[in-house]
Amino acid sequence: MPKDMTETRDIFERRESEARSYCRSMPAMFASASGSNITDAEGRSWIDFLAGCSSLNYGHNDPDMKTALIEHISSDGIAHGLDLHTDTKGAFLRAFEEHILAPRDMDHRVMFTGPTGANAVEAAMKIARKVTGRTNVIAFTNGFHGVTMGALAATGNGYHRGGAGMDKSGVTRMPFDAYADGVDSAALLDQMLSDASGGIDAPAAIMFETVQGEGGLNAASPEWVKRIAEIARKHGALLIIDDIQAGVGRTGTFFSFEEMGVMPDIVTMAKSISGFGLPLALVLVRPEHDVFGPAEHNGTFRGNTHAFVTARVAIEKFWSDDAFQRELAEKAAQITRSLEQVAALVDGARLKGRGLMQGVDVGSGELAGDICARAYDKGLVIETSGNEDQVVKVLAPLTTPADTFRKGFNILLDATRDAVTARAKLAAE
Amino acid sequence: MPKDMTETRDIFERRESEARSYCRSMPAMFASASGSNITDAEGRSWIDFLAGCSSLNYGHNDPDMKTALIEHISSDGIAHGLDLHTDTKGAFLRAFEEHILAPRDMDHRVMFTGPTGANAVEAAMKIARKVTGRTNVIAFTNGFHGVTMGALAATGNGYHRGGAGMDKSGVTRMPFDAYADGVDSAALLDQMLSDASGGIDAPAAIMFETVQGEGGLNAASPEWVKRIAEIARKHGALLIIDDIQAGVGRTGTFFSFEEMGVMPDIVTMAKSISGFGLPLALVLVRPEHDVFGPAEHNGTFRGNTHAFVTARVAIEKFWSDDAFQRELAEKAAQITRSLEQVAALVDGARLKGRGLMQGVDVGSGELAGDICARAYDKGLVIETSGNEDQVVKVLAPLTTPADTFRKGFNILLDATRDAVTARAKLAAE
Amino acid sequence: MPKDMTETRDIFERRESEARSYCRSMPAMFASASGSNITDAEGRSWIDFLAGCSSLNYGHNDPDMKTALIEHISSDGIAHGLDLHTDTKGAFLRAFEEHILAPRDMDHRVMFTGPTGANAVEAAMKIARKVTGRTNVIAFTNGFHGVTMGALAATGNGYHRGGAGMDKSGVTRMPFDAYADGVDSAALLDQMLSDASGGIDAPAAIMFETVQGEGGLNAASPEWVKRIAEIARKHGALLIIDDIQAGVGRTGTFFSFEEMGVMPDIVTMAKSISGFGLPLALVLVRPEHDVFGPAEHNGTFRGNTHAFVTARVAIEKFWSDDAFQRELAEKAAQITRSLEQVAALVDGARLKGRGLMQGVDVGSGELAGDICARAYDKGLVIETSGNEDQVVKVLAPLTTPADTFRKGFNILLDATRDAVTARAKLAAE
Amino acid sequence: MPKDMTETRDIFERRESEARSYCRSMPAMFASASGSNITDAEGRSWIDFLAGCSSLNYGHNDPDMKTALIEHISSDGIAHGLDLHTDTKGAFLRAFEEHILAPRDMDHRVMFTGPTGANAVEAAMKIARKVTGRTNVIAFTNGFHGVTMGALAATGNGYHRGGAGMDKSGVTRMPFDAYADGVDSAALLDQMLSDASGGIDAPAAIMFETVQGEGGLNAASPEWVKRIAEIARKHGALLIIDDIQAGVGRTGTFFSFEEMGVMPDIVTMAKSISGFGLPLALVLVRPEHDVFGPAEHNGTFRGNTHAFVTARVAIEKFWSDDAFQRELAEKAAQITRSLEQVAALVDGARLKGRGLMQGVDVGSGELAGDICARAYDKGLVIETSGNEDQVVKVLAPLTTPADTFRKGFNILLDATRDAVTARAKLAAE
Repeated sequence: MPKDMTETRDIFERRESEARSYCRSMPAMFASASGSNITDAEGRSWIDFLAGCSSLNYGHNDPDMKTALIEHISSDGIAHGLDLHTDTKGAFLRAFEEHILAPRDMDHRVMFTGPTGANAVEAAMKIARKVTGRTNVIAFTNGFHGVTMGALAATGNGYHRGGAGMDKSGVTRMPFDAYADGVDSAALLDQMLSDASGGIDAPAAIMFETVQGEGGLNAASPEWVKRIAEIARKHGALLIIDDIQAGVGRTGTFFSFEEMGVMPDIVTMAKSISGFGLPLALVLVRPEHDVFGPAEHNGTFRGNTHAFVTARVAIEKFWSDDAFQRELAEKAAQITRSLEQVAALVDGARLKGRGLMQGVDVGSGELAGDICARAYDKGLVIETSGNEDQVVKVLAPLTTPADTFRKGFNILLDATRDAVTARAKLAAE
Repeated sequence: MPKDMTETRDIFERRESEARSYCRSMPAMFASASGSNITDAEGRSWIDFLAGCSSLNYGHNDPDMKTALIEHISSDGIAHGLDLHTDTKGAFLRAFEEHILAPRDMDHRVMFTGPTGANAVEAAMKIARKVTGRTNVIAFTNGFHGVTMGALAATGNGYHRGGAGMDKSGVTRMPFDAYADGVDSAALLDQMLSDASGGIDAPAAIMFETVQGEGGLNAASPEWVKRIAEIARKHGALLIIDDIQAGVGRTGTFFSFEEMGVMPDIVTMAKSISGFGLPLALVLVRPEHDVFGPAEHNGTFRGNTHAFVTARVAIEKFWSDDAFQRELAEKAAQITRSLEQVAALVDGARLKGRGLMQGVDVGSGELAGDICARAYDKGLVIETSGNEDQVVKVLAPLTTPADTFRKGFNILLDATRDAVTARAKLAAE
Repeated sequence: MPKDMTETRDIFERRESEARSYCRSMPAMFASASGSNITDAEGRSWIDFLAGCSSLNYGHNDPDMKTALIEHISSDGIAHGLDLHTDTKGAFLRAFEEHILAPRDMDHRVMFTGPTGANAVEAAMKIARKVTGRTNVIAFTNGFHGVTMGALAATGNGYHRGGAGMDKSGVTRMPFDAYADGVDSAALLDQMLSDASGGIDAPAAIMFETVQGEGGLNAASPEWVKRIAEIARKHGALLIIDDIQAGVGRTGTFFSFEEMGVMPDIVTMAKSISGFGLPLALVLVRPEHDVFGPAEHNGTFRGNTHAFVTARVAIEKFWSDDAFQRELAEKAAQITRSLEQVAALVDGARLKGRGLMQGVDVGSGELAGDICARAYDKGLVIETSGNEDQVVKVLAPLTTPADTFRKGFNILLDATRDAVTARAKLAAE
Repeated sequence: MPKDMTETRDIFERRESEARSYCRSMPAMFASASGSNITDAEGRSWIDFLAGCSSLNYGHNDPDMKTALIEHISSDGIAHGLDLHTDTKGAFLRAFEEHILAPRDMDHRVMFTGPTGANAVEAAMKIARKVTGRTNVIAFTNGFHGVTMGALAATGNGYHRGGAGMDKSGVTRMPFDAYADGVDSAALLDQMLSDASGGIDAPAAIMFETVQGEGGLNAASPEWVKRIAEIARKHGALLIIDDIQAGVGRTGTFFSFEEMGVMPDIVTMAKSISGFGLPLALVLVRPEHDVFGPAEHNGTFRGNTHAFVTARVAIEKFWSDDAFQRELAEKAAQITRSLEQVAALVDGARLKGRGLMQGVDVGSGELAGDICARAYDKGLVIETSGNEDQVVKVLAPLTTPADTFRKGFNILLDATRDAVTARAKLAAE
């Protein structure tokens, strides 16, 4: 490694906070990326099945977005515009309305929050509380909604919850769909809310992800989602779908809840909405619930102008007709087939998730971690999820070519085989 | 206006949330910007004395940052890297250490939080609570720290607080420096904390801005800051300085607390830290308090790679020697002189703030709003702040040329004169 | 009615708060009482199947307690002794140790809290939090633990919860035993607590009543109680049994949890512990959890000296051998038989509760209320319970003679018959 | 000591919780009491200058109350009546209306809460929150309002606050009258509440004691009380005066706030309201704020029938004309004169409190404790108060004869002299 590079490396040890994480298991210093490939400063390349945790659904540095962004910057386009009107924001909104909202009969307003998913979740929860005059938000086991104090109350993960150093309030936890054997969690929720002494305060909102990305790729059934929507309506609560990880095509449709027969009152979006991996987050809210006054929920970076440029291109390029969505269906099927091969290598393993948000529960976090570590060494970036990190999770760019998918899965198969063999050897000793 | 532009305009009415704010008093559709000037889609230009609320301290589209960013994008540099090591992050950290931290004898670690100031504040509060095992954070009248639930508890503004729709907890409010006539607020705080029945729980942190940007440009005296630092130490609390708006040169030095003889345990930064107006936020934390485990406070966009590119250039360009800081001293003096002229036009008006973060308290929000509206019509973007919006606030880019400053102030003088005259006329009727 | 009495009556309307309740459905002005009978100022008598909501388990004005109390007062015995040592407190403690704690192998310490059940619950929750350093207390659907803010958080009833006018915190609600069809609530609780992302913070305590008195006489099975005790131990939580209503012989044994194979860490007691209906409450806590410092939980009336006098007599009279307990078993069987007759009159009615804490769920609060109103008119004081007030609840003094029981049940049968007939008539119209 | 007595003594060690407190510094086992004297089981007598912490304002076992109570019990009067109408409750209410409320032009309703001061405070806070729809209650440094979670949030004492094991919410702490040198605490409160960014949420209530009994006998000036009442009205908050310790004649008038020109919206009472030291508490609330529904705030022992008997006698005996109040003025003057003699013995000592609620701040908790310990040994029961236990507090029965007062003060003088001498000796060594 050249001296300069070594020094640069040292700087992370010396000056970056211990809160850093991904770089610990994937210590390369990355320098460039294109499509589904990412390359480090020494020229080594990996296939990327992590895709910025679903923030790079269209891959790295999509050429059309790249061109548009460079052009914008070159011509002194606005880089930071607070929440002033800009031509780029207008163009994004028009594309979003034309290709996303209108075709899905969604009359939602778009609120640009601070450019993080957590900020969108905070805004959504505040809106629901302001609309209903109630405090309580129903959230679910294994849900992940961010780590700022309002959102963290809704997040299930104990490690993140502990980071707060204080109690969280305003959220009631309920079991997610199919969480506990024999428990009809929608029926239980309805019973407790209907019971005058059920002890759960009338809810402002019911909030969930249709596929729990961090929680282990638990996919709610369409029936459950529909029943929860009905329970929300029955009890005067808003339905919030947190589509930050599962949205923007990840499950095979733009929104994860399409084809489920529900219309959420509020949808939160972030991660891939900018198309290019740039920070952007937004809240979709039905007009009758668009109750914030001017700047009542504010923030300096609400609306990232560069991200508007790439987000517009992404929408026009991928969602102006149904070609891309049809491709996704094929890819999802390929992923299922490939993961079945992986699962076959591990006793008791089972597939999780849906669409392009699938994985294999290999039964233990240790094994899943070992598989991912071996995959990394072989040239594949891939990560685990789940309450015990027991799920090997494929979050490849939606645009990954079939051939790259194949190569990636071959590495994953090899890594799994090696890990299983090593484990058997260890057990035999 | 061309048809296309009208349509674009309509989209905001139709689809953007009512939470939008600045665009209401400054309805132009902005399209490009350079230095201290901003231009709308119809070609009309304004001098910018708002600078993205201090997010554009180096002006719009600084040519050196622009070049570096375009080069980065063109060469498929990483756009989104989670918290993986990247060459750009490394280069930023090295520059930040060399030109900012080391010369100021700061051994702080850098934590990249979600790219909003509020997220940095949330992380800072969580760290203090985790370090101390205590919950209570002391914050002050007129402080502004963001609107996510944890940060909002520390924010004084009642309008923002009300947006939560629920109670905030974990914060005790105290009067800021010079808040109430005859009240030594540091002494009062110390007395209440020292009193076994004072009723204020032992604090995890004392947090404040040295100049309250949103609160009306209230500048704490160096003596008060020093005493608060001592009180924090005495009572086992961490000292958090929120330098989101006042930092990055705004008060005349890189950090607002330099030359005050204090060393905060935690510093929050956002707004201008990227140099280019791109979303980026960070927390500086002394190594002994760098207690988060890996990803304990996480978020997809922690670390914005494009922002690292421009942030590095900004630091190398402006802070590698003391030339820029010396310029700032001169500019601050010019601003004071100019604002004295403005203040002279309004009975009872008085100057607020310090450095390049000064303004005039004109005594009423109505008058201040009228002045800013008239300035906008005459070609100057400028805003109010304060609990009654009574302060006309100058947040011009630090790089504003003397001539542009002069032009801007002339507009401000005209606008003030007109507003005062109109008011007198109205009163006479 | 004599003039004086009318005036006395008016005073309630004129000066007593609207919070008054029982007097609304039972408007007599009561003047004297003895055993299981209560008499109003005009000389009309009622059989009392309410017994001060289980505060008069030994009936009104037990002659032995009465004699002892009069003697104490006559001889200038201490009436109020703060928490100083008094001969009467000592004598009570000795009797309580000898006849209650020692025979049941309980090494618990006795803490005298303020003389209300709610205060005992508050103390119990505080102890559990102090012992564990955790905040979260698991409570259950339909539980009732009092209406002060700490206890109210654990109470399920929405009407009472609403009275707080603010959010309650520190409690997680779970379904009680047999709450929801097909839901094994102990298994669900264990699963959620065991799940690293279950979203329920590690509990300080699990708290419940073995028979939910206000919640509708829901009796937990011994198996469930035992499993909950194991879950508490497994997760490092204290087991709190709130025996305020179900204790002191009400279920047939002194404590309601005897013969269940569990030993609670903390037991709360109030209501009948004084024997005479005088205010007294206490917390039994295992020595290793007796962590409060002197007066850390305090209050002026902790320890009611008059109540110690009667409480000692009650214990010596009723619990020094097993004669009383054997009687209770017979009486419980008689109640079951009688209530079966009542239930037979109402379609779909079913028996609830156990021991001398039984009732009939008649399916609607309206019907149950009508039955109780008719019973009152016929000379029986009896009340409803349950989340819809749908359970007619028998809480007769444990000392009620067989003949009085018979008379009382005959009234109840008549009242039920009349109510059912009236309902049928109404339905037929 | 006879064997039986020794055994009784052991029982406290063996079975009473560590939370016991007064018995630690005053270890006698008390057995009888009359007027201002209290006698232990061995026949030793003390003059009582503690009076059950102001719960025995009419002394121990007042003969008229005693006679009435024995007669009530002998004739099988109701001992426990839930909140049913009873003749005794009616008679109490009539006497309270005629002799207390009507002459003072108070139209308040009487709510009988659970029989503890804390329960009355909890009810008061809940009422204010329900009436206003707001959460925040303003309380003050050194205030004491009880240790249940709602009341504890308002209590200033850190030791008690720590006992909760969790955060308290819903209360903002402000400096009490004359708390900090040079701080006009009423003006500061008004400024912070009037400031749109003051960061204190609009209050439901402002609550305080006019003389802080536990907090060190800090007496608010009438002017301050009046200003706080005005601030409450101005900001739409209810005025709650907690008269639990300072009421029932303790300051020289029945209520402590008489002659201050204020009419509280809510008054809390407990301690001496029963006259005899029996548990009883009540909330006085103006009719327009009497918003609880039936049993919305409930509890088994709300309304203690025995206490109604004695409370009625107390009111008729002491408050039916102004003779008693005139006596109190004389006694208060005597106390002042006597305490001046005590204060003269200690360098820097100063008098605190007013009326019959006075004491001497001797500058250190150690010295005050030593004085009280020596007084106890010489035959006087007396206690300290204050944030450092630095105030020797005289809470003698209001009925204490002049001669007994003299004897008590002589003991106190001796004890003080001895303590000061011992201290000087120690310092000299």
